[in-house]
Amino acid sequence: MRIDVLSLFPEMFSGVFGSSILKKTQEKGLVEYHVADFREYAENKHRRVDDYPYGGGAGMVLTPQPLFDAVEDLTLKSDAKPRVVLLCPQGERFTQKKAEELSREQHLIFVCGHYEGYDERIRENLATDEISIGDFVLTGGELGAMVIIDSVTRLLPGALGNEESSVRDSYSSGMLEHPHYTRPADFRGMKVPDVLLSGNHKHIEEWRTKESLRRTWKRRPDLLESRDLTKQEKKWLEEVKKEK
Amino acid sequence: MRIDVLSLFPEMFSGVFGSSILKKTQEKGLVEYHVADFREYAENKHRRVDDYPYGGGAGMVLTPQPLFDAVEDLTLKSDAKPRVVLLCPQGERFTQKKAEELSREQHLIFVCGHYEGYDERIRENLATDEISIGDFVLTGGELGAMVIIDSVTRLLPGALGNEESSVRDSYSSGMLEHPHYTRPADFRGMKVPDVLLSGNHKHIEEWRTKESLRRTWKRRPDLLESRDLTKQEKKWLEEVKKEK
Repeated sequence: MRIDVLSLFPEMFSGVFGSSILKKTQEKGLVEYHVADFREYAENKHRRVDDYPYGGGAGMVLTPQPLFDAVEDLTLKSDAKPRVVLLCPQGERFTQKKAEELSREQHLIFVCGHYEGYDERIRENLATDEISIGDFVLTGGELGAMVIIDSVTRLLPGALGNEESSVRDSYSSGMLEHPHYTRPADFRGMKVPDVLLSGNHKHIEEWRTKESLRRTWKRRPDLLESRDLTKQEKKWLEEVKKEK
Repeated sequence: MRIDVLSLFPEMFSGVFGSSILKKTQEKGLVEYHVADFREYAENKHRRVDDYPYGGGAGMVLTPQPLFDAVEDLTLKSDAKPRVVLLCPQGERFTQKKAEELSREQHLIFVCGHYEGYDERIRENLATDEISIGDFVLTGGELGAMVIIDSVTRLLPGALGNEESSVRDSYSSGMLEHPHYTRPADFRGMKVPDVLLSGNHKHIEEWRTKESLRRTWKRRPDLLESRDLTKQEKKWLEEVKKEK
């Protein structure tokens, strides 16, 4: 996979692309990351990339020329037709499903605006996807791009060791995880539940499923609605509700 | 404000903390950023910060000692009682409202796990907040911490210039933004809508509100439900729906 990022702040990416999973996947040859400053594609004398909005109003708008030219240039660098992802508050909400979809592509280009709006022609005729990572205001698209790139890269075959993969599996059960405990059994008087020290695997499994149900019911009841519970899980959920 | 981050990958933060708004707010003296590797607080000989889970199972669990000691050490560095934010998939969903709440604090400490789970005693007795930035799997809490820190820092008085502030205002209207256009009026045959070139401000305002309603209705109908529309907006929304 080839991943290109177009940003006015390319230096923001150095720490993240140089560490942890993004570093490892690059070293393993699973993915190549490139960050380019799209200001370098601006044809005007002062390399301006934004201009005042037609119709008046506050705020600047990113002009089409530098981004169209940049994307066309990058498109030549791989055989695959790229997905062009625009980070913006108006985009579809990013989800794990979208990460899975993007992980099957060969070439992704991320376009990061920086508090300015995009000229509408960029949205309509250049972007293939508009994505928002959530209902909160960020200074630019850079952090959103990093989030998407991390979640997509993790899904590439061979990206994760076994230990990390197991975490992904537990997440995809559709419920929140049960509590975890490790040594010491007593930390400053705070103790590990007896059942986990019992060695009785049936009881441990029951405790974990019940705690997972409890946490999901308390914090994310929407997840329970979209998941088919087994008979046993339904019974435990009723027990958990009665405990309140 | 003082912001501390506890992470096993402190080098991930260099690019983001050294650029754009986070750099500017630090230079203006509005906020101080510090990143510490909590491995340095581990008391054992090999500086291990994780261990096997009680009760068995895959995946490692972050032990309480290094994080408790790190947070206690950082707590001594400011007069204010810190908010201790744990990044985790089980946390409450991050929103702009939460960003506003955190922006009124004097000291924030972010705890970033890295694919391991947290020992439950860290959640129960050390964290004041557990936050998730969305329903997708990330390698660690680092990107989530950066997202929250960016959105919180923007809200500090004096952090933004006028141009940037206006963008925030438009977002908080509760609707998605209308399309923006800037020069040229014709880019490779793609044209700016005539109304925006007309100079008729009443028509421009009407067009923008209708387009904003249209985009919100198409992409985020949930936002319309939680917002009181004026009589005029309701009428326009009906017109937009009929156009389909």
